[in-house]
Amino acid sequence: MAFALPPDALRDFRRALGEDGVLTDRAELGTAECATFQTFQKIPAILRPADRTAVSEAVRVANRHGIAIYPVSSGKNWGYGSRVPVADGCALLDLSRLNNIIEFNEKLGYVTVEPGVTQQALFDFLRAQKSNLWIDATGSSPNCSLIGNAVERGFGHTPYSDHFANLCGLEVVLPSGEVIDTGFSGLPSARTGPVYRWGVGPILDGLFSQSNFGIVTRATVWLMPAPEYFQAFFFQCAADDALPALIDALRPLRLDGTLRSAIHIGNDYKVLAGIQQFPWGESLPLSPARMQELRGKLKFTRWSGSGALYGTRRQVAEARRLLRLALAGKVDRLRFLDDRMIRIASRFTRPYRMVTGLDLTRTLDLLKPVYGLLKGIPTNSTLGSAYWRKRMSVPADPHPDRDGCGLLWCAPVAQTDGKEARKLVDLAETTLLAHGFEPMISLTLLTERSLASVISISYDRAIPGEDEKAMACYRDLEEHLTREGFYSYRLGIASMDFQANRDSYSRLLQDIKDALDPNGVLAPGRYVPLTHQQKGQLA
Amino acid sequence: MAFALPPDALRDFRRALGEDGVLTDRAELGTAECATFQTFQKIPAILRPADRTAVSEAVRVANRHGIAIYPVSSGKNWGYGSRVPVADGCALLDLSRLNNIIEFNEKLGYVTVEPGVTQQALFDFLRAQKSNLWIDATGSSPNCSLIGNAVERGFGHTPYSDHFANLCGLEVVLPSGEVIDTGFSGLPSARTGPVYRWGVGPILDGLFSQSNFGIVTRATVWLMPAPEYFQAFFFQCAADDALPALIDALRPLRLDGTLRSAIHIGNDYKVLAGIQQFPWGESLPLSPARMQELRGKLKFTRWSGSGALYGTRRQVAEARRLLRLALAGKVDRLRFLDDRMIRIASRFTRPYRMVTGLDLTRTLDLLKPVYGLLKGIPTNSTLGSAYWRKRMSVPADPHPDRDGCGLLWCAPVAQTDGKEARKLVDLAETTLLAHGFEPMISLTLLTERSLASVISISYDRAIPGEDEKAMACYRDLEEHLTREGFYSYRLGIASMDFQANRDSYSRLLQDIKDALDPNGVLAPGRYVPLTHQQKGQLA
Repeated sequence: MAFALPPDALRDFRRALGEDGVLTDRAELGTAECATFQTFQKIPAILRPADRTAVSEAVRVANRHGIAIYPVSSGKNWGYGSRVPVADGCALLDLSRLNNIIEFNEKLGYVTVEPGVTQQALFDFLRAQKSNLWIDATGSSPNCSLIGNAVERGFGHTPYSDHFANLCGLEVVLPSGEVIDTGFSGLPSARTGPVYRWGVGPILDGLFSQSNFGIVTRATVWLMPAPEYFQAFFFQCAADDALPALIDALRPLRLDGTLRSAIHIGNDYKVLAGIQQFPWGESLPLSPARMQELRGKLKFTRWSGSGALYGTRRQVAEARRLLRLALAGKVDRLRFLDDRMIRIASRFTRPYRMVTGLDLTRTLDLLKPVYGLLKGIPTNSTLGSAYWRKRMSVPADPHPDRDGCGLLWCAPVAQTDGKEARKLVDLAETTLLAHGFEPMISLTLLTERSLASVISISYDRAIPGEDEKAMACYRDLEEHLTREGFYSYRLGIASMDFQANRDSYSRLLQDIKDALDPNGVLAPGRYVPLTHQQKGQLA
Repeated sequence: MAFALPPDALRDFRRALGEDGVLTDRAELGTAECATFQTFQKIPAILRPADRTAVSEAVRVANRHGIAIYPVSSGKNWGYGSRVPVADGCALLDLSRLNNIIEFNEKLGYVTVEPGVTQQALFDFLRAQKSNLWIDATGSSPNCSLIGNAVERGFGHTPYSDHFANLCGLEVVLPSGEVIDTGFSGLPSARTGPVYRWGVGPILDGLFSQSNFGIVTRATVWLMPAPEYFQAFFFQCAADDALPALIDALRPLRLDGTLRSAIHIGNDYKVLAGIQQFPWGESLPLSPARMQELRGKLKFTRWSGSGALYGTRRQVAEARRLLRLALAGKVDRLRFLDDRMIRIASRFTRPYRMVTGLDLTRTLDLLKPVYGLLKGIPTNSTLGSAYWRKRMSVPADPHPDRDGCGLLWCAPVAQTDGKEARKLVDLAETTLLAHGFEPMISLTLLTERSLASVISISYDRAIPGEDEKAMACYRDLEEHLTREGFYSYRLGIASMDFQANRDSYSRLLQDIKDALDPNGVLAPGRYVPLTHQQKGQLA
């Protein structure tokens, strides 16, 4: 496969994007070829368009020369493949220079941004505007792209946690280089593009999420107004068998709207990896029996959860009452935390402990990032867990790709049902332990009826053989999960062939792909199965 | 254009659907060719498949013989074209025999249905199951199809009012006759099809809403659990200029989730048409000055609104407090109504009047259907307003097509913003009055950020010249609205050429259409502009 672009293609890309818009430095390309697991794909160039017109131009050049291009926004798709293209030989189309905040509407609660705008950038912008609006941040890097995460259907922690559900009015560069706007956006004098998602006629937004049908160069992100009052809650369950009843107790509150945001539950391994790196000296993998001892020693529990209540003081008080009622007997501890309590606790940890019997000092350090996320404050503290099995300490600027952190994420969805959740967790824990990895698992009550699990395989890429071992584990896990009907909401670049199993569904995707991208230049293989013909062209 | 199917096509359709599955009786076809406004399209046959396999077969026969087919569910698309196809010469594909309720899940709050299942059928089913789940009903006919309304993006009155947003896991017969399932549905052993809408990979659901890309033969509809407590509210504003402040006062409550359901506001003409038919003796159209007198005489106001609060008693109490606070000084009257009050009022209208000073007897008769809709109880009482200018009384089984009711609906969307709403209403009222029609207008705060207006042109088709006059008014209205950026969320069959203006967007729609339906057999012209080639074929 191509390690370098043909000279005439390179010339045309440079003409379209400028000299500094095309990178071919081998070291730089090598960095981009590196993910948190083993990949073999080579990248012949990195294209860095400065604006949407340049994106269109780059796409046209790609068509002219038959060069495959692979768009990334910020490229922080860690655990799923980082910046690495699905197919070998794709030029990377890096959209990070498109970083304008185009429109901001405090009254109607939205912002229109380009793909280079990060969580942190929007957060800072809103602060500077003294805005009353909150963002919803993922627990990934503060520097991950809002649009990139939303079109990958990532999620966060506030009532706006389903990111794609809060995206609207997409500007898309099609594989032909033509530009469209979805919904009402782009219609002459239209005033409702950013506020009403469906528009009129077929709804096309979904085509540009988890796909290779177009490049989203602009979108409106809805933002929630800060509530009068906010209170986070944290709960713990010591018993191994507590999970099903816990899920079943939370479901009605999620269904009836008392809980408006995603609730996150982690198993003990997940919590431990949030507290510290692998306790070297222990044997690999940490066994459930050993975990039980560690839980006693380090004072954490088999299951831990977090969520928050948003509203007026009285709305929150009523939600708190209902939550207490629902979780009574289902959890061993349920604590509520608000800004005032944090201020008090930070100042007077000793008197606070005397009053409440709770030592908040250490707890607060661990909880603060989660507490912040529940209010949409980006954090990079969660990235530390990617260093779980590294024998280096977590650097100030964590960068899993660079530091050889091994990380594979699998994200199956289940019904919000205790038995189903238990089955999923059992499957994941058994499989990972059998392959020699600690099963770090989170369960997020993402929507009213479904939960998304994130299962992490965390390892040290520097150790020979671990890459292969981790991938074998991942394959095994995927196979077990799908056999039981737990399909992932999102795929890593090593799993994209999954859709190929769907017969008429795959053919439909391919028909659309052929119609929109007859030369197959845009992100070949990404979520849309290659036709036999395309496979031949790539081979 | 074809008034009858070619004999060999007819033979093949009969083979595929059975003798009783193909209707060619001229009287029956004539009925189906009749909408609530003037149409010229002829229907050569009505195809009535009994199940999904027969739908596929019918589509295959259509392809083989180059016969265009036009699917309808219950065909109650009143005001937008009823059952009449967009293009001339289409055979009607009537899906009403596909009326099975496939799956019902009380715990997770959903039901999987076929397109022939009506609002009333589901309502009755849930009653029979003693289910705690509510449906969301439109104010149209109880016999309208759940799926038909949802894929047209209709809306109702409860927190699940955005019907398409509460639809999931579509089974679709493609124009090729092949069948796909969207989202996770249809994957082997999948357990999350009905609970998680996005699935994995490109989201295709939107392609099959307001389109001609496929025939939805099954879908899951999410249902809300009945709240512990329910309270409806009704408000009135006497002043003509009250609207902007009212909208602006409601917006924050809709944005912050205090108001979880659509709020409906009607102008005086809309309310009058809900109370009675045209007051014959008055001159046409009823002028604003005359309306003012009628308002005084009949005790209604310039603006009236309704909505409801759902939750525990305390949640509702807090929402009520916030609503009162927000509407103080913005409305002249704000009344709350719950089941208990209705029971008391019905039994003791006299003592109730003595205590409250409010005469509920007549009010209750008018409010009960609206009150019911706020709880998802279907009603056909709102159909009466289609008889506004008819000189017959509203029959027990209202049927606007049959009775020559003239009705054109235009449904522009606006930002939830007082000034915008006022501008839209002014435009609509001025235009309709100038054309000699009473402007009946509703504004629905449909989503957190947008409102949908429904503007009715109501007339008597029996009067010569009125059809043409109404259509001229409709065209004028559309032109004014779109010039000001107020685009409709939904189109009547006479307005489908609208999308043709969108250049690259139209081409994209056409490219998808060509890829999926190369023979152009499925509902030509419906929301997707015809290519020049297709126009030639139809001409």
